[in-house]
This record gives sequence, C-alpha cells and structure tokens, in this order.
Amino acid sequence: MNWHYRQPVTIHFGNGTITRLKDEIRQTGKKRGILVTSPSFEKNGLAARLVTDSDGTLVTTYSGISPNPDIRECDACIKTIRENACDLVVALGGGSVLDCAKAAALFCTATLPAGDYLDRKIPLPPDRLPLIAIPTTAGTGSEITRVAVLSDHEKGIKTPLDTPAFYPDTALVDPKLTWTVPRHITACTGMDVLCHAIEAYWNIHHQPVCDALAIHAIRLVFRYLETACEEPSNPLAREKMAEASVTAGMAFSLPGTTSAHACSYPLTSHLGIPHGEACGLTIDHFMRINATADTDGRLNELARATGFSDPGNMADAIAELKYRTGLKTGLTRYGLTDTDLHRLVSASLVPNLKNNPVPITAAMLYDLYASLR
Amino acid sequence: MNWHYRQPVTIHFGNGTITRLKDEIRQTGKKRGILVTSPSFEKNGLAARLVTDSDGTLVTTYSGISPNPDIRECDACIKTIRENACDLVVALGGGSVLDCAKAAALFCTATLPAGDYLDRKIPLPPDRLPLIAIPTTAGTGSEITRVAVLSDHEKGIKTPLDTPAFYPDTALVDPKLTWTVPRHITACTGMDVLCHAIEAYWNIHHQPVCDALAIHAIRLVFRYLETACEEPSNPLAREKMAEASVTAGMAFSLPGTTSAHACSYPLTSHLGIPHGEACGLTIDHFMRINATADTDGRLNELARATGFSDPGNMADAIAELKYRTGLKTGLTRYGLTDTDLHRLVSASLVPNLKNNPVPITAAMLYDLYASLR
Ligand SMILES: [Zn+2]
Ligand SMILES: [Zn+2]
Repeated sequence: MNWHYRQPVTIHFGNGTITRLKDEIRQTGKKRGILVTSPSFEKNGLAARLVTDSDGTLVTTYSGISPNPDIRECDACIKTIRENACDLVVALGGGSVLDCAKAAALFCTATLPAGDYLDRKIPLPPDRLPLIAIPTTAGTGSEITRVAVLSDHEKGIKTPLDTPAFYPDTALVDPKLTWTVPRHITACTGMDVLCHAIEAYWNIHHQPVCDALAIHAIRLVFRYLETACEEPSNPLAREKMAEASVTAGMAFSLPGTTSAHACSYPLTSHLGIPHGEACGLTIDHFMRINATADTDGRLNELARATGFSDPGNMADAIAELKYRTGLKTGLTRYGLTDTDLHRLVSASLVPNLKNNPVPITAAMLYDLYASLR
Repeated sequence: MNWHYRQPVTIHFGNGTITRLKDEIRQTGKKRGILVTSPSFEKNGLAARLVTDSDGTLVTTYSGISPNPDIRECDACIKTIRENACDLVVALGGGSVLDCAKAAALFCTATLPAGDYLDRKIPLPPDRLPLIAIPTTAGTGSEITRVAVLSDHEKGIKTPLDTPAFYPDTALVDPKLTWTVPRHITACTGMDVLCHAIEAYWNIHHQPVCDALAIHAIRLVFRYLETACEEPSNPLAREKMAEASVTAGMAFSLPGTTSAHACSYPLTSHLGIPHGEACGLTIDHFMRINATADTDGRLNELARATGFSDPGNMADAIAELKYRTGLKTGLTRYGLTDTDLHRLVSASLVPNLKNNPVPITAAMLYDLYASLR
C-alpha cells in the first residue's frame, strides 16, 4: 500500500497556551497583524485582551464572522486586511472563524473575489499571509487541516476547499478557551470530532499514520465527551476533548471526510442543523452500512481497538452517545415531504461521498433519510 | 498537560517509491545534487542507477560511510560537496548514512570542521542544503527525525545531536529496498524500532500524538518482525516493518530516547554490539524497573493497548522476541571484569538517561550490567 503524509503545522497545546501568542507573532517578524474573530469574543473582552497584549503587533480586528460563514464575510475581511496593510492573520474562534480567516489569508494575495473560487474551477492562489490559528471549540480541527468549508448563501452552496496553503503556520490549542462553550455546542462539536476520526479511518484514502491518530481520538471522545457536556469546567474532560479534536484533525486532513459529512451539508443548509450534529445524524447508520462489506476486516479492527466487540456494537454506542449528550437522533420534527427527501439526497451527492468504503447510491441515501423522517 | 508537536517532513511511502526521486529533485529546483551512500550500494549498482535516472541532477556520489560513522567521514563528504558546488543532498542508506548525510548537509554551510560541534558547546548552524532521505533499513527512522548520531572514534565519543535543521525535507520510504537486508541486521534494526517506540511512550517528555504512533509501531513489530527475519522477501512483513520504523521515528523524534538507548552507546562503542541489538539488551529490564513505579498506570495502559496483560508480560514477550530473532539476551561471551562493568556504567550516564520515567542511578546500572554478565 502506497501512502503520503504531511502535517507542517507547529502545534502548541495546553491550558494557558494562548499567552504564547505575543512570542509567536514576534517569531514571524511581522508587525501588522489582523485579529479575525467572531462577535462573541469582542463581547467577552478576549479579543481586546489579545490586542492589548500584542504590543501593537495586532493593528486591527475583524469580527464580522457568523456560523457557516458566507463568502461575503470573507471578502469584507480581505477589505479590512488591505485597508490596514496587514501582513499577518491571527484567527481566534470556532471552525467558522478559522475557515474564514484561512480563506481571507489566502484570497487576499489574489485579485478575484473569494466567491469566484467556490466552484473549484479556478486554481487557488499558491501563497497566503502568515497565519496563526487559535481554536475556541473542540471540533473542526481547522487549526491543523488543509481544508476550509465556505458557503455562498445566495447560491445555496456550502463546500470544502482544500489546498496545502490552508495549513496554518502555527496552532495554539488552549483547552481553557473551551470551558465557556455551552453544553449543546460542546456536544455538536464533539460529535464532529468523532465523525472526523471515524471517516478518516474508513476512508478509501486511509493510511496508517492517520489510522493511529483516529483510534486515539475516538477513544477520547467516548471517554470524555459526556463529562465535557455535563461539567463544562472539568479540566481533564475539556483537555482530552481538545486533544481529540487536534488528533482527529490530523487524522482526516489528508484522507478527507466521507458519507456522514457529505450528508451534513444539506442537513445544515436546508434544515439549519449545526455541522457536528448534522454529521452525527447519519454516522452510526453509515457504520452499519459499511460493516456489511468489511471485506478486509478493518472496521472490525477499529471497533476492537476502540473498546467495542464489533462495528454494530460501536454503532449502538454512537447512538447512545447522541442520546446522552442531547443530540438529534432523527428528523421527525421537520415534517419532511417526499420532495424534501429527494432534495436532501441530490444535495448529498458531493465528491467526499466517493471516499466512503462502500459505494453509496441515491437509493441508499433516500432509504436512510426516510428512516430518519 | 502541555505539549508541542512538529513534524515537517513530507513522507512518501510504498513499494517502488524510490522511482519518485527524479520528480522530487526537480521540485526542489536544484541542479547539482550529491548522492551520499555506503559502499554496498555502489557495489550492488543501486547508486549508479539512481545517478543515471537523475537526468544529470545528481552530479557526484560520496560513498565513504561506514557503520557508526566517524566525524571525519562527514568532513570528507563536506569536502566533496564543496568541490562539486553541490546544492542538494540525497541520502541513500541505513541510519549511519542518513545521519552522516544530515550532518554534512548542515555543517557544509559553516566553516568549522564537523567534529567541533560534537561536544555540543557551539550552537549548530541554522540552515542546511535541501535534503531528501531514502532509508534502506527499517530501523533508525532517521529519515523523519531531528536527530543525527555521530562518533569521534579517536576520542571515544558517540553522541546524538538534535536540531530542527536535521529534519529532512522529504523522506522516500520504499520497503522493497529492505528486502535484501540480511537476517541479523533485520533483527537488530527491528529491535531498534521497538525501543524507539517504547522509549518514546514512557519518556518523561511523552505526549499524545507520539503515544498514538508509538502504540501503532509496537503492535507492528510484535506482529511482523519475526516473519521479516524468517522470510526476507515477504512483502507484507517488510512493508509493515518499514511502516513501524517511520511511525516509531515520528514517535520518538520529539520526546527523545531514554535508558535503553543511553546504555546502547557504550555497548556499541566498547563491545561492538550493533545499535539495535545493544538497545534491545536492556529494554525489557528497564520495562520491569519502570513498572515498579508506574504510578499513573501509563505503562499498564501501554501493555494492554499492545496486546499484553501487564508490563511484566510485555517484558517477557520482548525477551522471547530477542531469542526468536537471534538477538543477544546477555553479555556472557564478553568475560566482563568488574572494571569493565564500571566503565560501561559511567559511559551510560548520558543526558537521555534522564528521560527515563524512573530515576536510574549508577548502582542500578551496575546491577543491571552485572545481571547480564
Ligand atoms: Zn466536520
Ligand atoms: Zn535507536
């Protein structure tokens, strides 16, 4: 088996790691940084504190980023970068902020508006501004991946873009930043971590380094997610979920995601279900589907390496974890019509569906969505 | 717990990967490469084949590298680099060749002779020539580590040097190159892999990414090393041992090695025991010592994650693996005197001994060496 591995992001992990920011900025040699963040960190004062601590190296802040960021927010961020002649991007936030900041750091080096790249027909620019990523949720792993998920709400597009230029230079992962994340978002982002790890492992592009990290992350989610939801300031549970997020990110960055993520895009854009919860809705069902054709026994090995007797048993545990952390296990409340189901199906037929180890047809997707209705 | 991770080497893995070399050289944009290798690859024609295939981008070959390379061989290599105005180093060989090539690529950018850096009092040069590493044994993991072990035989020094500049740019790991490695060298290098992984895990500088990779590598060695020794052309066993070598290298590059490696240096330089065999001589004994103070239960977790009931059981399995692969399990044949033992002890008190989770005293080392006599 031939494989390839690359993970150029320098990772600093631990409670209090955010205090390294000033040193990290100094090491880049840059003097005109922009802090890209979401309104909540303007409100709670963390953004202002980082700017103050930066000794003038963070010259401006852009905080106009909402969940599932629209490409126009990225363009507005680029405008701020240009107006302030910024030479460095520091991103502080959840996956939406990090992805938007990654895109802004890249597209600001080119002349076209960001939206022009969304259909993936134009090659992405090769270089970006130096980039330091600080995640505030244990979820997307965006701080160490080569992926950014962007949306054009007007055109109804939500799509992952993928380029080595999206690897940040440095990730500062400070689990303490996640202590204030509300219970439901903790559950959603934790389920996203689980899906990244499982989908990295069963991906047709799987490879051993990512396998080892996926197993590590899965064990952590089953052991600590519920506690992180129940006890938001539990230091061990928060630290271990942050560790799971980073290692799952390292696991899926190269192989990519598969079926559960493919289905999550319309579940989010049509029904407004948060990303991680949307991924979690189908992951156990795809595990049962994939187990029916586990010819090389890999899925069985995964189940045993993570503490289960077989994939069916592991799928049961995922369903139970969703229930116990208050995540949706079905779509009953949406009153979906047959037309709605067909729309969900056709919007799920995106490229990463092809990474699933068992070929997934439109008919299979219809049956799956119908069973959740 | 705070930790740091960095692994900037791009890895290409798989049978036939060596054919990528020409493309990899082209991507560097360099035109005057040197092939650094050992006499055996001049003899068997592989060195000549790579030069021919390189379309003139490999302009010279240096093949004067012996096992446990002397720092003068590194200086001779640097002389060849300068005489030929080389701007790129390609290293093909076992750990000795890779380490010497890493040192030459670095020290050729400075003016002092390589030997001046061995006592670690002068800071190492910050930059090196572009470097592509091609391992021919499944052992040191040097192709992806920031370490080079160098010797000054006149002064009786063998020491590891450590700098981020030692990370190669690219590793081409082609398991097929290991098919011709003789049985005993396969056993020695495979035991080295096992020690790298175990010592990375129980290291006081352990961290989760390296833990996950260490567990992965340990499982592979127990499953495939004996077959690789018995059936040198068994594709699966050779591939899995090469995979174990890379992942163990990623595991120990940051935490470093510990007690078994500390003891290996005098066992190699005083008694001529090959590196991996020398590490293996004490690893199971240190596992029993470390198990006596396994206060956080990590060693017990390691044993269970790799298929054993407890560390004692795992130590037994290591002893049995040494026996079955024809590696030394004692030092009886050397007729060591008490003076010899004391010499071994004092030469084992090197910095990486301090990475061991249980403090190791000179008296403990004396007892250990005496028990092997
Ligand atoms: Zn996701
Ligand atoms: Zn070694």
